[in-house]
Amino acid sequence: MRKPKIVILGAGYGGLMTTVRLQKHLGVNEADIVLVNKNDYHYETTWLHEASAGTLHHDKVRYDIRDVIDRSKVDFVQSTVVEIKKDEKKVILENGEVEYDYLVIALGGEPETFGIKGLKEYAFGITNVNSSRLLREHMEYQFATYNMEEEKDDTRLTIVVGGAGFTGIEFLGELTNRVPELCHEYDVDQHKVKIICVEAAPTVLPGFDPELVKYAVSQLERKGVEFLIGTAIKECTPEGIFVAKGEDEPREIKAGTVVWAAGVRGNSVIEKSGFEAMRGRVKVQPDLRVPGFNDVFILGDSSLVINEEINRPYPPTAQIAMQQGEVCARNIAALVRNKQDLEEFKFDNKGTVCSLGEDDAIGVVFGKKITGASASFMKKVVDNRSLYMIGGAGLVLKKGKFNIF
Amino acid sequence: MRKPKIVILGAGYGGLMTTVRLQKHLGVNEADIVLVNKNDYHYETTWLHEASAGTLHHDKVRYDIRDVIDRSKVDFVQSTVVEIKKDEKKVILENGEVEYDYLVIALGGEPETFGIKGLKEYAFGITNVNSSRLLREHMEYQFATYNMEEEKDDTRLTIVVGGAGFTGIEFLGELTNRVPELCHEYDVDQHKVKIICVEAAPTVLPGFDPELVKYAVSQLERKGVEFLIGTAIKECTPEGIFVAKGEDEPREIKAGTVVWAAGVRGNSVIEKSGFEAMRGRVKVQPDLRVPGFNDVFILGDSSLVINEEINRPYPPTAQIAMQQGEVCARNIAALVRNKQDLEEFKFDNKGTVCSLGEDDAIGVVFGKKITGASASFMKKVVDNRSLYMIGGAGLVLKKGKFNIF
Repeated sequence: MRKPKIVILGAGYGGLMTTVRLQKHLGVNEADIVLVNKNDYHYETTWLHEASAGTLHHDKVRYDIRDVIDRSKVDFVQSTVVEIKKDEKKVILENGEVEYDYLVIALGGEPETFGIKGLKEYAFGITNVNSSRLLREHMEYQFATYNMEEEKDDTRLTIVVGGAGFTGIEFLGELTNRVPELCHEYDVDQHKVKIICVEAAPTVLPGFDPELVKYAVSQLERKGVEFLIGTAIKECTPEGIFVAKGEDEPREIKAGTVVWAAGVRGNSVIEKSGFEAMRGRVKVQPDLRVPGFNDVFILGDSSLVINEEINRPYPPTAQIAMQQGEVCARNIAALVRNKQDLEEFKFDNKGTVCSLGEDDAIGVVFGKKITGASASFMKKVVDNRSLYMIGGAGLVLKKGKFNIF
Repeated sequence: MRKPKIVILGAGYGGLMTTVRLQKHLGVNEADIVLVNKNDYHYETTWLHEASAGTLHHDKVRYDIRDVIDRSKVDFVQSTVVEIKKDEKKVILENGEVEYDYLVIALGGEPETFGIKGLKEYAFGITNVNSSRLLREHMEYQFATYNMEEEKDDTRLTIVVGGAGFTGIEFLGELTNRVPELCHEYDVDQHKVKIICVEAAPTVLPGFDPELVKYAVSQLERKGVEFLIGTAIKECTPEGIFVAKGEDEPREIKAGTVVWAAGVRGNSVIEKSGFEAMRGRVKVQPDLRVPGFNDVFILGDSSLVINEEINRPYPPTAQIAMQQGEVCARNIAALVRNKQDLEEFKFDNKGTVCSLGEDDAIGVVFGKKITGASASFMKKVVDNRSLYMIGGAGLVLKKGKFNIF
């Protein structure tokens, strides 16, 4: 009898969690498991703000996929997904194709630029290892160039962060710690450096507790961040950005570095493959399958799960993707064993911690508000927990964060 | 009685040696000594190829001037020299002016681009701390950018070094050691990296022993350097260079990084101040004074001293500049004490060692040819000697190179 073939696309939080759980649930003779990923490593998306600022080396935010998969049970294919032919039950890869009986799409999100002119071309993203490394290098290059100019251009040292959501705020926390180091490394007067955060929404960290938001803003302002709230980026150019508050005439802010940290949409492969989607995200069934496709699961940033309490989608996070991965693995194991009664996914929100740099953070954990050192401690616990969930204690020892006191 | 005022312009090898020797020879009551320098640090010009390649941090190639001068005897002024009004016996600084009774011009050289179009704009230089740091950052930025490109542009990873003289060859030695590190850091396939050295002269390291030259070339070729000898750079563009052999039609070499390491001329302040000069260098008297100006000494890269044996000028080196500094200090001390019989400068060539990276070098020391590990050892001895001559054992301990075995 032919074994069913399970193909998992993407080795992010959702895909990798599905893989490591499946290799636990299923015996070698029950199924063939294939994991497809662009790189041979997994990276911690939630740590990229550190690699981008330069406070943590990018090698610390990634690990080899082969270190966490059981190679006797899982075939790893390093390739990029081009398109899913869902009616033919196969996936077109950049260097081949692969057929499936069960498919898990966990390809991650893409930056959403809302059609703002020039953002795609001129803004840097905190999206993956390559983009974070380039952003770090770009800032260093601006600082290094500054000293070589006959006519000093102070706007080289201006860094604009578009978006005061989770990623934007965490990046600002790291950046304010990094700037004194950059100034020392490149002989730059720290007073010349400007950090500006532009947010179109009427508040920083929308959805967060207002008291915690106030704490975060005052801490970052104290460290030199200027906030322009309720202000939209209208255009990005090689020289900086144009912003406007409400219906005001746009004004220019010249800046050597513009970072876009304001939005995530689903993967473009989703729409290209003909799935019905909103901004690349598919509203999945409670069992995480795509309506009408009983053999296709979608997890993580490309899936849409409604928070019934407020009738709005849950924001895409590592926490939700990993929980989806656990349920998805159990549901696929059930299908392989011909059980048709699948488990429903329910998000169990254990809390959220937003880092404000090495030794500061804000958060709500088990319903309790925390700030400062204790929140920062919890953030590292959360970071280590992701490692533990996917790779066990060994991975925590290898890649964990222990500078916690 | 008014004390004579000695003004020393530049804290490079020549100027700093003059200063530390003068503070030893003269008592506090004999003269006022003023040292003027653009930066508050001295840098080891002969180590810049390491900072440029990224094999040695730029903070290791510089030290604080205040650490080696006796502040009870020497006033340090941090400023840039604009012009010397030699008939009024004063120096115009960017932020003021200073009068002198005795002047030492030791402002160092500048890159000589021989009027080649685009070199000044688009090529990087191994000239000072700022330019070396920028070159290092530029290469890193090219490597980081490579991975973000949808269409990979391999020429980003091509590094052209213009000039196979001392600086060019020493830089190539470090660069070939650095490239594997860069490839690892930025996830780049080493086979994509190209290093090309272009030299207009018919040989590498003109003036060096042919046997040693052969050794150097074969070592660098083995490590991946392609040499284009007898080939001139005709133009530098943002995309690379145009080269031609003899009367051939120029051909383009696309390269993400072009380094110009081929020529040094005297300081532009020399010509601006109306001194008679050839490429910014003044043919000084045997006592190191400028013909016609009994109160002005010129040392180092802006001075011209003829090697009588071959009737050609000595190439400007740290060794000659430091020896000039010693003689200059003795001559000024004599003038202060109203002795008119000045010492004549005679260059005592102790040998030359050209590094080929961390653990390899070629050289002639006390007339003996050496290569490999023993030459590399001698190179570090030479580097430490400069520190010792200027700052004593304390400076050697602080900044010396001890990775010698």
